[in-house]
Amino acid sequence: MSNPQITFRQTTFTGPSLLLTRRRTISRATIHAQLDQLRVNGQYDCFKLKWHPIYDDKSRWPAPLHLFWDSDVAKWIEGACYFLADEYDVEVDAAVRELVAMIRSAQHDDGYLNVHFSVVEPGKRWTNIRDMHEMYNAGHLIEAALAHTQYYRNDLLMEPIAKYIAHIRTRFGPGEGQLRAYPGHPEIELALLRYYSVTRNQDAFDLARFFLEERGNPAGQDGKHFYDWEMEQRDEPRWKRPNSFPMDRSYWYCQAHSPILEQPSVEGHAVRAMYLLTAAADMLHLSKTITAPALATASDWLAALRRLWSNMVDKKMYLTGGIGAVAQWEGFGIDYFLPQGPDEGGCYAETCASVGVMMLAERLLHADPVLDGRYTDVMELCLYNNIMTAMSADGKAFTYENQLASCGSAKSERDEWFVCACCPPNVTRLFGSLGGYLWDYGGGDGKAWVNVHLYTSAEVRFPVGEREVRLEQHSNWPWEGNVLFDIKGAEGLETMIRLHLPAWSKGEFSLTPTPAAGMFKVERGYLCLDPAYVAQNPRFSLDVRGFAPRFIAPHPYTNQRTLTLARGPVVYCIEDADHQWEENHFKDIGIKKGEEVTEEWRVDEKSGEGYFALRSVGWERSPDVVMNGGDGTRRELVFVPFYFRANRGGKGQMRVGLRDDGI
Amino acid sequence: MSNPQITFRQTTFTGPSLLLTRRRTISRATIHAQLDQLRVNGQYDCFKLKWHPIYDDKSRWPAPLHLFWDSDVAKWIEGACYFLADEYDVEVDAAVRELVAMIRSAQHDDGYLNVHFSVVEPGKRWTNIRDMHEMYNAGHLIEAALAHTQYYRNDLLMEPIAKYIAHIRTRFGPGEGQLRAYPGHPEIELALLRYYSVTRNQDAFDLARFFLEERGNPAGQDGKHFYDWEMEQRDEPRWKRPNSFPMDRSYWYCQAHSPILEQPSVEGHAVRAMYLLTAAADMLHLSKTITAPALATASDWLAALRRLWSNMVDKKMYLTGGIGAVAQWEGFGIDYFLPQGPDEGGCYAETCASVGVMMLAERLLHADPVLDGRYTDVMELCLYNNIMTAMSADGKAFTYENQLASCGSAKSERDEWFVCACCPPNVTRLFGSLGGYLWDYGGGDGKAWVNVHLYTSAEVRFPVGEREVRLEQHSNWPWEGNVLFDIKGAEGLETMIRLHLPAWSKGEFSLTPTPAAGMFKVERGYLCLDPAYVAQNPRFSLDVRGFAPRFIAPHPYTNQRTLTLARGPVVYCIEDADHQWEENHFKDIGIKKGEEVTEEWRVDEKSGEGYFALRSVGWERSPDVVMNGGDGTRRELVFVPFYFRANRGGKGQMRVGLRDDGI
Repeated sequence: MSNPQITFRQTTFTGPSLLLTRRRTISRATIHAQLDQLRVNGQYDCFKLKWHPIYDDKSRWPAPLHLFWDSDVAKWIEGACYFLADEYDVEVDAAVRELVAMIRSAQHDDGYLNVHFSVVEPGKRWTNIRDMHEMYNAGHLIEAALAHTQYYRNDLLMEPIAKYIAHIRTRFGPGEGQLRAYPGHPEIELALLRYYSVTRNQDAFDLARFFLEERGNPAGQDGKHFYDWEMEQRDEPRWKRPNSFPMDRSYWYCQAHSPILEQPSVEGHAVRAMYLLTAAADMLHLSKTITAPALATASDWLAALRRLWSNMVDKKMYLTGGIGAVAQWEGFGIDYFLPQGPDEGGCYAETCASVGVMMLAERLLHADPVLDGRYTDVMELCLYNNIMTAMSADGKAFTYENQLASCGSAKSERDEWFVCACCPPNVTRLFGSLGGYLWDYGGGDGKAWVNVHLYTSAEVRFPVGEREVRLEQHSNWPWEGNVLFDIKGAEGLETMIRLHLPAWSKGEFSLTPTPAAGMFKVERGYLCLDPAYVAQNPRFSLDVRGFAPRFIAPHPYTNQRTLTLARGPVVYCIEDADHQWEENHFKDIGIKKGEEVTEEWRVDEKSGEGYFALRSVGWERSPDVVMNGGDGTRRELVFVPFYFRANRGGKGQMRVGLRDDGI
Repeated sequence: MSNPQITFRQTTFTGPSLLLTRRRTISRATIHAQLDQLRVNGQYDCFKLKWHPIYDDKSRWPAPLHLFWDSDVAKWIEGACYFLADEYDVEVDAAVRELVAMIRSAQHDDGYLNVHFSVVEPGKRWTNIRDMHEMYNAGHLIEAALAHTQYYRNDLLMEPIAKYIAHIRTRFGPGEGQLRAYPGHPEIELALLRYYSVTRNQDAFDLARFFLEERGNPAGQDGKHFYDWEMEQRDEPRWKRPNSFPMDRSYWYCQAHSPILEQPSVEGHAVRAMYLLTAAADMLHLSKTITAPALATASDWLAALRRLWSNMVDKKMYLTGGIGAVAQWEGFGIDYFLPQGPDEGGCYAETCASVGVMMLAERLLHADPVLDGRYTDVMELCLYNNIMTAMSADGKAFTYENQLASCGSAKSERDEWFVCACCPPNVTRLFGSLGGYLWDYGGGDGKAWVNVHLYTSAEVRFPVGEREVRLEQHSNWPWEGNVLFDIKGAEGLETMIRLHLPAWSKGEFSLTPTPAAGMFKVERGYLCLDPAYVAQNPRFSLDVRGFAPRFIAPHPYTNQRTLTLARGPVVYCIEDADHQWEENHFKDIGIKKGEEVTEEWRVDEKSGEGYFALRSVGWERSPDVVMNGGDGTRRELVFVPFYFRANRGGKGQMRVGLRDDGI
């Protein structure tokens, strides 16, 4: 199964749904707002290779403020192409064409293509692969080119990018005279593998594989760790280090402290870890296909991926799907270190990181020979919570960090843009290719299959032999569990349909028409329908239970004795917009499992968006009352979806986990 | 009132007590064991200025492993002199004499005196005052010289040290051609002020004052922060930094991020902060004496000291009196960040830091115009818990860090010595001068006064006019609250006695004979006896209540929902030595406030030491049971004093705070 960034075009979002609303907003508002930002901030014409005043800024080392501009442009192009496929927009089309022309003009004769090292430090190409993001920028250009060529059906962007890949392939690798390097910020690996999956360019596969296998080699270059070696080449002492390295040689920051296969736990910068593991999963997946080279170490890669995934999901993930507790390295703390906010020890939960988790989960659904609904659970968790919370309902403001509790220094609010602008276009890219995450499918030899991972209202069309099979799902997800399916074109095919049963549903469901005994089974979070049932019932409905509000809590070892409300896949928070008396970020509010929780369908005035709010009661108790006893003040509480926070004004006070006042 | 390091000789520890037991152990075992360590590890003869193999070690930067050797020797001399005053020891005496001769021989003609910069980097004196500990070492040499001259009544050590002080005074200060520097590791300030209090050497006072007032000046040297200026002189980039600096210019690490008077909270390396503030408190105290210069900013210093003290005690101190949650900078985390162990996010609680807290609390009792028992509470807390836990009952093994919970990487156990050997001799020094912490006293013009801070069995003698007043206290503290007082030589004097009422006693006490109305009052944690009562009752007894076992808990904002047992000033822990079934560091054990706690007087077989153990019941519940409900396994639990942990073998599993299973 190809990547969602390729397959999404087979899916159409149909009837009204929360996901369709977000996609429309992005298509009609966000893409334009982000384009404006690129124009205002300078990225738009950076490939013209003229000097921008910001290039004089020396306040940040080693990565100057503009170092990611190439990727900002590339990610916008990628997202724009995904949405152009959905809905043509003349301004967006014109911008893409102009940007592509500028990128083409910026390429050096030898194929090299990078703004900073063309304009600011032209003599220093590839001298600091650990910190200077050349390969990261290259990776995003590759992804942009893939999206571009798919939509425009021309090679205007692909041509220079292919040349750039060839340039990189020549320079890096295990051969004589090549550098045994790998990027400090992984990204190019997954881009190269996707490039391979489209082009079958063996160089791209080999290069990605080299990067993945070489990473963390303690003696890769002249008997030394590559980052040590290149540091010596730059004549830098080991104690001179980026601020993201708390200690000298903190190579775990970029997952290079040991070879990936030997890493016991997921460490460091969360986005880098996700991009890296997504590539590893894709390499493993591709190695099982006919065209790609088999991987002798496939079982080791599977074990490593499962190990690192479990470490992350079981011990390093917030209830919202956020990952990364520590701001300094934008990444993972130790196991179970998951404070809710910076004033409690840290919370980062970067938007991009959860986009990365979705990408990784999606790839693991293919790389792992066992279809396991736990990957899907996390995919849904991230989508409806830590990712969706990163954009305002109007599509014009964004978050970078997604703390579970606000504090004086980190209010719950959004910005129109960031100096390091990775997150906003990542949401765009993700929603642009979202159709590709909903399901997998295929068929041949009289058989067809569909695995449905995410529910919404959408239709997919895919070929089986010479015919086209169409599967439509229709639901009011994430608010209701009833999903109506309609399969067409599968008459006579032996069609297996697997439907995800989210963990929060506890596997409770019903099917209509009710299947006879033996017509279904449940395996690892998927309800597998027998082809006979599908043949008899091309229209059927699944009713997933578990939409009653429930209390959830983090693992006891987190030392977070808190309760959070959830409903279906949606995790809730409390905001000062509903509680104007609040002045202390809800630190003093406790709730109990026994209390009644009621639902209220609300329609937001400003956005017109509907959602279920939840109501319950709690107790405000000051630290003194908590320590010395006392009842505190009874409070009527309203909870709103975490993804909907910071859309209604207020003081920016918000909390996901409230003090657990039960036992 | 002079410093306890000066006044301790007026106090004699009498009848049996826990403190006397520790002092005897140190005098008879510890001093010798530490001398052996100095001999084995090289410090002993380092002032001979010969090359030691360890000097070749370049693994640590900027401070090499041997950089603190001067202070190791100095601290041992200081402690040895305190105990020699108590009990003569021919071996200790001979070693002090030999060490002093070696130190004298190591001094340069210009007065400079430092091993590293004489042997290893002779050209680099005073080029890295931020990191290279020259002034720290100098400060400990000054303290050693003060102790030496007090015991030996000669100037053999004082003479070279006075010359060294003069050398430093010439080099540093606000004058033309002087460096506006201040030590990265504060220590010399408090030493200089004590030196001043003995010698009235104005240069010493002025230098200490300069260091305190100049610290953190953003534009001290050529318009730059001194540490920036000297970094430029060394041609070092700001991103080259010690591993204790998480970010570039993390000057808060050494309390130099802003002038002390402007610092809103206590930050950075905990020992440095305590030494620095002790000096500030002493400067403030001295400025109120006749001989010392008055301080125009006295009220600002008082406000700063109170502010930083409160921030530390209210928001950054463990239940055991430990401070410092973060290992990387051996210091403070953010407010309320107090995990119990490294596996929960950090816990350092360095021994030296609590010694520093005691020093600071003692000085604040004099610097603050208001006698406030809250300083005394913390002094007692540190003494009986985080400090006493740092040495084994046999006096031969020590801890550096004092986590409140063990984990796989940090077992509850002691070592005979450390590469950075600051803590063991600090315990020696503290216990050597402990008599000076028990009480303050004075008198004249027909009046006398004594403020009793700590209870034990001891006697103090002090002159009032031409007579000698003696006050004896006798008790079984910390196990029982009855303290018998006997004052002699005060006949005809108007004698005010103030007795500390620990916060944990909730101010409950009785006096025998019962005082008549108006014969006493209680003010800020002190019971003030009217001179008429003292005159009528030269023998009286105080009975402090609060020795029933009690449950204590950290502040709710720490996110530590735990309970700990305490009895009087002693905080308890649970150890695997009493619970051989334990395998998970008591992470899964919960206790409840309602449960009965019984006491059991135990005598340790190996050490012969007695203590109250506490017994109660708890519930072992796995994370799964905690999350999903269930009773768990009922467990009989035994608690022992935290200070007595790691004396009885076992697996090194220990915990102070257990999961609170009540509401």
